[in-house]
Amino acid sequence: MVHAVIAGLAPGADRIDITHDIPPHDVGAGALALWRAAPWLAPGVILGVVDPGVGSERRAVALRVAEAGAVLIGPDNGLLLPAARRLGSVTDAVALTGTSVGGATFAGRDVFAPAAGRIAAGADMTTLGPAIDPDSLIGRAVPVPATDAGGRIVAEVLWVDRFGNAQLSAGPDDTGPGPVRVNVRRFDAVLRIVSSYADIGSDELALVVDSSGLLSVSADRASAAARLGVRAGDQVRLAPESEGHR
Amino acid sequence: MVHAVIAGLAPGADRIDITHDIPPHDVGAGALALWRAAPWLAPGVILGVVDPGVGSERRAVALRVAEAGAVLIGPDNGLLLPAARRLGSVTDAVALTGTSVGGATFAGRDVFAPAAGRIAAGADMTTLGPAIDPDSLIGRAVPVPATDAGGRIVAEVLWVDRFGNAQLSAGPDDTGPGPVRVNVRRFDAVLRIVSSYADIGSDELALVVDSSGLLSVSADRASAAARLGVRAGDQVRLAPESEGHR
Amino acid sequence: MVHAVIAGLAPGADRIDITHDIPPHDVGAGALALWRAAPWLAPGVILGVVDPGVGSERRAVALRVAEAGAVLIGPDNGLLLPAARRLGSVTDAVALTGTSVGGATFAGRDVFAPAAGRIAAGADMTTLGPAIDPDSLIGRAVPVPATDAGGRIVAEVLWVDRFGNAQLSAGPDDTGPGPVRVNVRRFDAVLRIVSSYADIGSDELALVVDSSGLLSVSADRASAAARLGVRAGDQVRLAPESEGHR
Repeated sequence: MVHAVIAGLAPGADRIDITHDIPPHDVGAGALALWRAAPWLAPGVILGVVDPGVGSERRAVALRVAEAGAVLIGPDNGLLLPAARRLGSVTDAVALTGTSVGGATFAGRDVFAPAAGRIAAGADMTTLGPAIDPDSLIGRAVPVPATDAGGRIVAEVLWVDRFGNAQLSAGPDDTGPGPVRVNVRRFDAVLRIVSSYADIGSDELALVVDSSGLLSVSADRASAAARLGVRAGDQVRLAPESEGHR
Repeated sequence: MVHAVIAGLAPGADRIDITHDIPPHDVGAGALALWRAAPWLAPGVILGVVDPGVGSERRAVALRVAEAGAVLIGPDNGLLLPAARRLGSVTDAVALTGTSVGGATFAGRDVFAPAAGRIAAGADMTTLGPAIDPDSLIGRAVPVPATDAGGRIVAEVLWVDRFGNAQLSAGPDDTGPGPVRVNVRRFDAVLRIVSSYADIGSDELALVVDSSGLLSVSADRASAAARLGVRAGDQVRLAPESEGHR
Repeated sequence: MVHAVIAGLAPGADRIDITHDIPPHDVGAGALALWRAAPWLAPGVILGVVDPGVGSERRAVALRVAEAGAVLIGPDNGLLLPAARRLGSVTDAVALTGTSVGGATFAGRDVFAPAAGRIAAGADMTTLGPAIDPDSLIGRAVPVPATDAGGRIVAEVLWVDRFGNAQLSAGPDDTGPGPVRVNVRRFDAVLRIVSSYADIGSDELALVVDSSGLLSVSADRASAAARLGVRAGDQVRLAPESEGHR
């Protein structure tokens, strides 16, 4: 129905589905999916609907990252900001108002899609509603790693993909290129950093530089996440092994 | 393959997937999915394939709702009529004939898609096959609530969505706006009618006016259907609570 | 992201998703999905990504079947050849080179999609990389049935679809039209060959000529594969029943 509303307002516009597999109400997973895809979606209109607060006082918003030619549309609940910040800085934003059909339960169809269709058809974002302060938008960027008292990098499992790769919120720039001691739940071992899944030994776990430039814990054609028992949100401690320790 | 056949016949036509998640052979679930989406799909060609009787004597049909500018195409097994009746009255209909490749097992590709493509390319429906009497089409409208001997409204669980909302075949016009005693399986309690999920208390079950204008039994970011143990097809009795009883 | 890359390079090109449901790393299942769909996809560009060896020495390739007007793009791991051979003979092929973003883990986005987009926009395949010998491409055609010492046809379960139909690598030309003794795992019985699911009795298992022209073991609105306990890759022995044995 969201597609149909957009198609009606912007008949020639190309529409691409990013994913329909975000777990119910999981705003964080939706935010990461948009963050991963954003560089390939701009310039354009990016519509996100993970909206457990639909019908509440949470705002419906459109925000613009002018340098990327992107407008992001969705609920103001943290879904959009990581993607927006990956594309640049939020230039301006508006609050969307819309008339719902039936109950106020399907803003994707009744509020966000009409806004996306109008912008795709050439309307300026500022015609969609009153301006709001970009600094008032809710959300944070994708987690960046911290450091604990012992000097270890504290990262987070951002996402487990359907192959069982556990994407971490740290990249090779954080750890250096060498082996890294990885501690998550009961797992504690030194893993190599490799640049493709094919470089992982048949029984090995390794850190792979993935398609977003982040490290993921991966196995050779098997689920690393299942072997480690980890899931999105778990904390992972990373300690680069000095040459002397090897 | 259905997409490819349509694209070959009507290269410039926009195509929208409604869903690929109808349970195997569940004509009722497919009919409801089309019924929910229909107002947003017309004018246009609507193609449905839930077709357990493919290859049998069941007819392949196209039917027109002229006032909505819609042609619906699929098996004559009840899949199309609820959506058609939501759009208006069936003006005329034809029986489709088609030559199947291999066995007669994939009418979506071999019969329905060619018909949809031709109409999308501008052909008139009447050129696709012999006219049939619209009154001979199989199916009923979406269930409407009945009343039992005790004066209670007897509705049906039409659909349980992936969030666990249990959509009923009754709307707020049937019950009135006040609290409603809801009895389904072993569940028997008075629920409030609210207009959005955000209005439901954290441990509450409530009746929400959903995006189709019907009532659904819903919980706050949890599966109401799981809590009640209900599924599509279950009978639900609704008794508006009079002011005096509160 | 693959869609977005293609859309950026070939804005007017129609894009069709065949499936996103290939099990992880299952090159054979992907090859069969392309083989089934190929006749409906040509002429055009066919992109496949089931790529467990991404980042290894496996080649990324584009290959052309000139008589069908088709270019197939993907890893050189057996994914593409069955579909290509169904369309005709491979006229010429090139090795694709591409620059990956981050690690070498997402060739679909970084290597295959750019190649597909360029060809869809009109570039000739030979401009995408150095020519390679079509005979060096890895893969085989879809399995064809063999014959065992006892004269029985030895076929394979190619695919179990979501309805539980078990597609075999043999067609009615291999068995003849008559009843066939089917032996797979512990199942051993004579089944009829019918031309549609509707011809199967309510408790019957039968061989149906499916939409690819192959035989599948099917039941009436139930999963034949579950009843037989079979899955893709299982060997099935087929012995046409002579008239005298009936």
